[in-house]
Amino acid sequence: MTATIDYARYDRIRPIRWTGQALELLDQRRLPFAQDYLVCEDSDAVAGAIRDLVVRGAPAIGIAAAWGMVLAARAVEAKDGAGAAPLLEPALQRLNAARPTAVNLAWALARMRAVLLLAGDDWRGALEREARAIETEDLAANRRMGELGAALIAPGSGVLTHCNTGSLATAGFGTALGVIRAGVAQGRIGKVFADETRPWMQGSRLTVWELQQDGIDATLIADAAASHLLRNGQVQWVVVGADRICANGDVANKIGTYQLAISARFHGKQMMVVAPSSTVDMATPSGEAIEIEERDPAELLGMAGSRTVAEGVQAWNPVFDVTPAALIDAIVTEKGVVERPDAASMRALFGA
Amino acid sequence: MTATIDYARYDRIRPIRWTGQALELLDQRRLPFAQDYLVCEDSDAVAGAIRDLVVRGAPAIGIAAAWGMVLAARAVEAKDGAGAAPLLEPALQRLNAARPTAVNLAWALARMRAVLLLAGDDWRGALEREARAIETEDLAANRRMGELGAALIAPGSGVLTHCNTGSLATAGFGTALGVIRAGVAQGRIGKVFADETRPWMQGSRLTVWELQQDGIDATLIADAAASHLLRNGQVQWVVVGADRICANGDVANKIGTYQLAISARFHGKQMMVVAPSSTVDMATPSGEAIEIEERDPAELLGMAGSRTVAEGVQAWNPVFDVTPAALIDAIVTEKGVVERPDAASMRALFGA
Repeated sequence: MTATIDYARYDRIRPIRWTGQALELLDQRRLPFAQDYLVCEDSDAVAGAIRDLVVRGAPAIGIAAAWGMVLAARAVEAKDGAGAAPLLEPALQRLNAARPTAVNLAWALARMRAVLLLAGDDWRGALEREARAIETEDLAANRRMGELGAALIAPGSGVLTHCNTGSLATAGFGTALGVIRAGVAQGRIGKVFADETRPWMQGSRLTVWELQQDGIDATLIADAAASHLLRNGQVQWVVVGADRICANGDVANKIGTYQLAISARFHGKQMMVVAPSSTVDMATPSGEAIEIEERDPAELLGMAGSRTVAEGVQAWNPVFDVTPAALIDAIVTEKGVVERPDAASMRALFGA
Repeated sequence: MTATIDYARYDRIRPIRWTGQALELLDQRRLPFAQDYLVCEDSDAVAGAIRDLVVRGAPAIGIAAAWGMVLAARAVEAKDGAGAAPLLEPALQRLNAARPTAVNLAWALARMRAVLLLAGDDWRGALEREARAIETEDLAANRRMGELGAALIAPGSGVLTHCNTGSLATAGFGTALGVIRAGVAQGRIGKVFADETRPWMQGSRLTVWELQQDGIDATLIADAAASHLLRNGQVQWVVVGADRICANGDVANKIGTYQLAISARFHGKQMMVVAPSSTVDMATPSGEAIEIEERDPAELLGMAGSRTVAEGVQAWNPVFDVTPAALIDAIVTEKGVVERPDAASMRALFGA
C-alpha cells in the first residue's frame, strides 16, 4: 500500500516561479480558463498579489512573501544584513499585512528577517537561498504529509475536501490535496468530492481543475450539500488544510471547515487537517485569539463579474472560521500525526 | 407583543396573477433585476414554468398548477366534471410530473381532481373557484403561521433563514419568511440573516430583495458561514420552510437545511420548520421514502451565465435534503405547532 508515488504525474502545476529576476505568480483569479502568470518586479507588487488573491493558500503566500523580500533587497544598499534589515523592514511589514489569518506569512518573513540579521556581505544571496529553502522544504513537507495522511485512510474510502490545498496553494503537491493524491495513487481512495467553496470558488475553479490535470476524477458539490453527502455513506474522511493551528489544536481554515467538522462528527466520519509545521503557531493558545479575516462583502453580491443581489443589501463575509480541536481526529504535519489533538499532544510534537 | 401586522407593508409581492384569461408568473429566474411576468395561456406552459423555476416554492407551485388546470379546462369539451376528468387527466399528470419533491403540487392537483369529479355543468367554474380557494387559503395559512411561529421567538432574537420562503414562494406573506416578518413587525426579531442558497441563489436573489421591499434589513452570508454565525451568539433560531413533511416529522427542504439543523443543535440553537398543512404528507412514513430531486449538474458549473468550472468536471446537484424530526424543535402549520415532532405528535395534529 505504500507504493512510491509518481510525482511527475501527481504534481504538475507550479503557482510560483522565481526567474532569477522576477517572481511570476499564476493568477488564480483567472483560473481555470486563463493560465496567466503575473510578473512581480518589486515587493509591493508581491504584497498586492497576496492581498488580491493572485496567489493564495497559506504555504504559497509564505513562499511568495519570501521571494518578495528577495525583490525588496534589490532596492536597498547596505554592506551587510544587519545594515539592510532596518531598511527592508517597511517592505517586510507591508508583505506581512497583506493577509491576516494564515500564520505562514509571518513565519516565512520571520525566517527571512532572522537570516538577514546574521548575513554578511552576501546578504542578498542569503535571502535568495532562504527563500529557495522555504519553497523546497514546503514541497518535501507536502510529500511527507501525503504519505502520513494517506496511511490513516482505509482502502476503498471516499473523501470530501474543501477550498484548494493543492499545488496551487503550496510549493507543490499540496497539503490536504497531497494526502488525497497519495491516497488515490496508493489505491486507498476510491471517490473524491470537492466543495465549491463560496464565495471565491476555490473548489470549483481550482481544486477540481488541479485534480483533472492528474487524471483524478473529483465530483463537485454545493457547500450546502456536504451533510447530505456525509449521510449517504460515500465519504469516510473530510480532509482539509489549515491557515493556522493553535497550541491547543484549534484550527483556522477556510469558512465552512467548521461546519464540515460538526457534520463529520455527527455522522461518525473522520476529520483530518493537513498542514506543514510552518502553519502551527504555538504562540496562539486557542482559536479565540485568531484574527478572522473578513473580506469585501461584494464577494457575496455578484458572481463571475455580474451583480446578483439587489442594490443596498448588506452582506457579511468572514472567509475563515475556527474548528475546535475536539472536532478533529488527526492533524497531519511533516513532523508527524497528532491524533485527537489537545494542548498536551500538540506540545509533545511541537514543543512549547 | 401580538400587535396586528400591517400586511400592506409586509407583503408586497405577488408571484402568481390570474387575469381571468391567463396565468401570469413573475419570472423568478430573472429577479431581482428584472421583474417580468411570463404569461401562460395553457397548462403545458404552466408545467414548463414550474419545471424551469419561473415559479418555485412548494406552496406556489401547487397554486400555479391549480391555475394550470383551469387553463387545461379550456381545451376540453364535456358536459360535466365526470366527463371532463379523464380528458383533463393527461394535463394533470404533466403538471404533476414537473417537480418531484414538494408534495404541495400533488396535493393541489388532487384537490382539483376531486372537485372536478363532483362538478356539474359549471365544472369550469368549479375548477376556477377551487384554484382561487387554494390560493386564498394559502395566504390565510401563512398569516396564521406567522402569528404562531413568531410567538415562539423570544424578544431580541436573531434568526437565520435559508432559500426563499416568502411571498415569492407562496400566495403571499410566506411561510418561514412570514414568521420572520411577523417577528420583526412585533419587535421580537432584531436581526435577520439569509443564506445565499447555492446553486440557485434563492437567498441572494430573492429573499434579501423581498425583505428589502418591506424595509427589513437582512444580512446575506455564504451557506458555509452559517456555523460560524451560529457560534457567535447572534442567532437563536434557524427558521426554514419545507417541501414535504412526513408522518414521523422528517422534513424535506432545500439542500443545506439538514446541515443547518445539525449545526443549530450542536450550538444549542433552535430549529423551526414553517409550512402549511398542504405540505404535510401523512402517506409518506419517513424521509427515506422521499424522492430527492437532482437537478442538472450544470447549475454548479457556472454562475450568472458564464462557466466557472473546467470542461469535463463532474458535479452532483441534489437540490433537497431530509432533516430528521429529532433535529427539529418546532413544526409550525396553520393548524397548530408540533414541538419536538414525532409520529405520535404529528398524528395528534394531522390524523392518520
